Amino acid sequence: MDQVTVNFQDAQQAFLLLKSMDKDKIAGFLEEMAGQIDGIREELIPTAARESHLPEGRITGELGRTLGQIRLFSQVVAEGSWVEATIDKADPERKPAPKPDIRRMLRPLGPVVVFGASNFPLAFSTAGGDTVSALAAGCPVLYKAHPAHPETSRMVAEAIKNAVRTSGLPKGTFQHIEGGIETGQLLVTHPLAKAVAFTGSFRGGKALFDACNAREQPIPVFAEMGSVNPIFVFESYLSEQVEATAAAYAGSLTLGVGQFCTNPGLIFIPKSTEQAFSKAVVSQLKQSAAAPMLHEGICHNYYQALETLSHAREIEWLLASEPGELLTGNAALAKVSASDWLQEDAFQEEVFGPFGIMVVYESEADLIALAQQLKGQLTCTVWGMPNELERSGAFLNLLEEKCGRLLFKGVPTGVEVGHAMQHGGPFPSTTDSRSTSVGVHAIKRFVRPVAYQDMPQALLPKALQEANPLGIRRKVDGEWM
Amino acid sequence: MDQVTVNFQDAQQAFLLLKSMDKDKIAGFLEEMAGQIDGIREELIPTAARESHLPEGRITGELGRTLGQIRLFSQVVAEGSWVEATIDKADPERKPAPKPDIRRMLRPLGPVVVFGASNFPLAFSTAGGDTVSALAAGCPVLYKAHPAHPETSRMVAEAIKNAVRTSGLPKGTFQHIEGGIETGQLLVTHPLAKAVAFTGSFRGGKALFDACNAREQPIPVFAEMGSVNPIFVFESYLSEQVEATAAAYAGSLTLGVGQFCTNPGLIFIPKSTEQAFSKAVVSQLKQSAAAPMLHEGICHNYYQALETLSHAREIEWLLASEPGELLTGNAALAKVSASDWLQEDAFQEEVFGPFGIMVVYESEADLIALAQQLKGQLTCTVWGMPNELERSGAFLNLLEEKCGRLLFKGVPTGVEVGHAMQHGGPFPSTTDSRSTSVGVHAIKRFVRPVAYQDMPQALLPKALQEANPLGIRRKVDGEWM
Repeated sequence: MDQVTVNFQDAQQAFLLLKSMDKDKIAGFLEEMAGQIDGIREELIPTAARESHLPEGRITGELGRTLGQIRLFSQVVAEGSWVEATIDKADPERKPAPKPDIRRMLRPLGPVVVFGASNFPLAFSTAGGDTVSALAAGCPVLYKAHPAHPETSRMVAEAIKNAVRTSGLPKGTFQHIEGGIETGQLLVTHPLAKAVAFTGSFRGGKALFDACNAREQPIPVFAEMGSVNPIFVFESYLSEQVEATAAAYAGSLTLGVGQFCTNPGLIFIPKSTEQAFSKAVVSQLKQSAAAPMLHEGICHNYYQALETLSHAREIEWLLASEPGELLTGNAALAKVSASDWLQEDAFQEEVFGPFGIMVVYESEADLIALAQQLKGQLTCTVWGMPNELERSGAFLNLLEEKCGRLLFKGVPTGVEVGHAMQHGGPFPSTTDSRSTSVGVHAIKRFVRPVAYQDMPQALLPKALQEANPLGIRRKVDGEWM
Repeated sequence: MDQVTVNFQDAQQAFLLLKSMDKDKIAGFLEEMAGQIDGIREELIPTAARESHLPEGRITGELGRTLGQIRLFSQVVAEGSWVEATIDKADPERKPAPKPDIRRMLRPLGPVVVFGASNFPLAFSTAGGDTVSALAAGCPVLYKAHPAHPETSRMVAEAIKNAVRTSGLPKGTFQHIEGGIETGQLLVTHPLAKAVAFTGSFRGGKALFDACNAREQPIPVFAEMGSVNPIFVFESYLSEQVEATAAAYAGSLTLGVGQFCTNPGLIFIPKSTEQAFSKAVVSQLKQSAAAPMLHEGICHNYYQALETLSHAREIEWLLASEPGELLTGNAALAKVSASDWLQEDAFQEEVFGPFGIMVVYESEADLIALAQQLKGQLTCTVWGMPNELERSGAFLNLLEEKCGRLLFKGVPTGVEVGHAMQHGGPFPSTTDSRSTSVGVHAIKRFVRPVAYQDMPQALLPKALQEANPLGIRRKVDGEWM
């Protein structure tokens, strides 16, 4: 507890400095941070691969993504318009009362507690999207390391701390904290914590959400808690491309041994093509090379969840899966009728691993009821011929309510980092569907608007000064300049 | 309970239509709504004045503000760029994997439950900012009428329903519901409710916040719960203009019989000018005409709060106040030393009515500790000479953390409706400091981003179609177009 208290004083001190810091200094720090991490890649990649049981090729790709994210946020900060500077000028002549000068911009919230994810030891961990978007906003980060990859986390933390020192930022800008669930609770309930970002299980995310709402001063929790990412397949579409559809589905289901937040754990297919599609998917899954899961707990939970589902009489197992050697996650596939699926919530709970449930529907008319029953998702995918989609307006209209991203081609795995990405959906996929944890808008989670009324020019943040010394895009009297 | 269930089905049906409706139809409906309300002004003004005990002049002004807000949102909707349309175009040639087409925009959340406020029977009630910004976003509104002005609420509700009919919108677009606390709880805990807006007491807002977080699917609650809106006065500033400062303070304190969310219930003044300033404020307060408060409950609570505070030994009463005839709210002023204020949270709790606490500080160096102790506020105001402000960077930096709007001239009462306004501060002033309930950004409370990946052009919302048929400002591949 003492250590946590001390850490927060440092973080608060850093916050009071960061929030008035020159944007170029923060942008430069982020560049330096990417450089420092890139500089240890030769040791980092094998360490992360060893601790996560993920292949080095995958880790190398993830490192590229991580560095790309950091550099993207560095650009966003350097450009500067993300603060949404808005100026309503004074009008001393207005009747009945003079109009004041009001200037508004987004300002950082304060120290942010970030929890890393086991399934992305780099891109959603120590220097991942949550950490980087919080730092970009001007919020110090208290990073709670994931115990599944402690060495990786320490190495990245050292690189970040080097960048903090080299760039002349206050030492409280970034802190690396190791510990268990209790440490996490202490961190998020500290009065100086102002927001929380989390990627992981529903249970973990919901516990943080509840703890933070019960605080004397509640704070926002941005928890990304997982999703079954359903795919809905229409009849003509499927009957014309059974093999290709099966390959795409099986590939996305087993990607990363099914340990992504966007693996499609549910697929809805028409009864007419059921036999051919089932056979094709099972054949694909049998060909997919089994690989180790991230750690023992996840592997144990995976087979435990399959064991629990095996007692459900409504399920027919198309491909059963038994624990293999070490941490191997073998793919599994179950089938259930649409009417049975509608009756049982357990059939849409996430099983973290390469397991899919195929739901067989009788006719297109069933899709509305299926969409209605669906819980909130990060993504929903619809595969149909143009005419099938065009006549399904009511279904698509409903389905949009259940997700943050709606796909019509390709698979939900593979989340682009860009301007238009939305990685956050209705509860229970996340605790705040109005936020995204991927893409440039992730920075918006850690800020709030502040309006300055008749503030002397010299005291205003540069973004709001009359001369626009930062040269950013601003809204002045309702018009973008 | 049955009635509530039926209402929500209508609201949900309306939502599924509204969210794909032409923006001009919604903008036209808002214009029509303003026209319908304006059309009943001759009966509405006396009714609202009678029920609220507010003078007709004040109600007339409030009606103007209400109509202005509705028309502003009509313009925002008609212009259309508020949806933040963002397009990242596909790149089929990208290596190692082709880049998909992703298009993102803000979409309405669903049915919104709005609670009216007693202190603004028009501008924060039936057709107030919460209702209008939710409708503008495309969210149906279930409006829970405030029992303090039932006739006013019914009249405005009928005008809105007329506009719904005339404009050809679904009848579930707006519903007017009367009832007590239990009805409110039923409304916000209904599975189809997707957000809540509230203006009122801390107790009421916090109860809704807790109820909505405890739902199976938690939903956002935007509760504006009040504030003491402290004013900090520097020594040179005050000593040069004692009378004018006293007049400004007393005027803002007693405006609307102290029943605004922005009345400055706290003022921090330097010890050197204590005597002169106290005398001037008391003189001003004695001259202010006593007026009736909104209703019996508020009047009772006001004198009850003063009675409770009268037992505090640390307080010296500069102007005591006794209940007068009927609902009269007589102004009261108390004085406490900065060191005593720091020790007692009760001295910064909102007393709804024309009561102020004057906190006397010894020196500028005390200001940091005072700002640190302060709870979250809608506004903070600082009155100082340029040189006093310029040397107070650390104090101002801290103070910004405690409010949504920071003023340097004028008084916090009088909240401009515009682009740069921020009416929402850190807890407990509101439940979500990242939102505003006044100004164009109020619409952002009732939306979430949705990304469409590789969606066929014909199915895309118009705002995202390639040809930009709405002609709105969009971000394409990172550049504003």
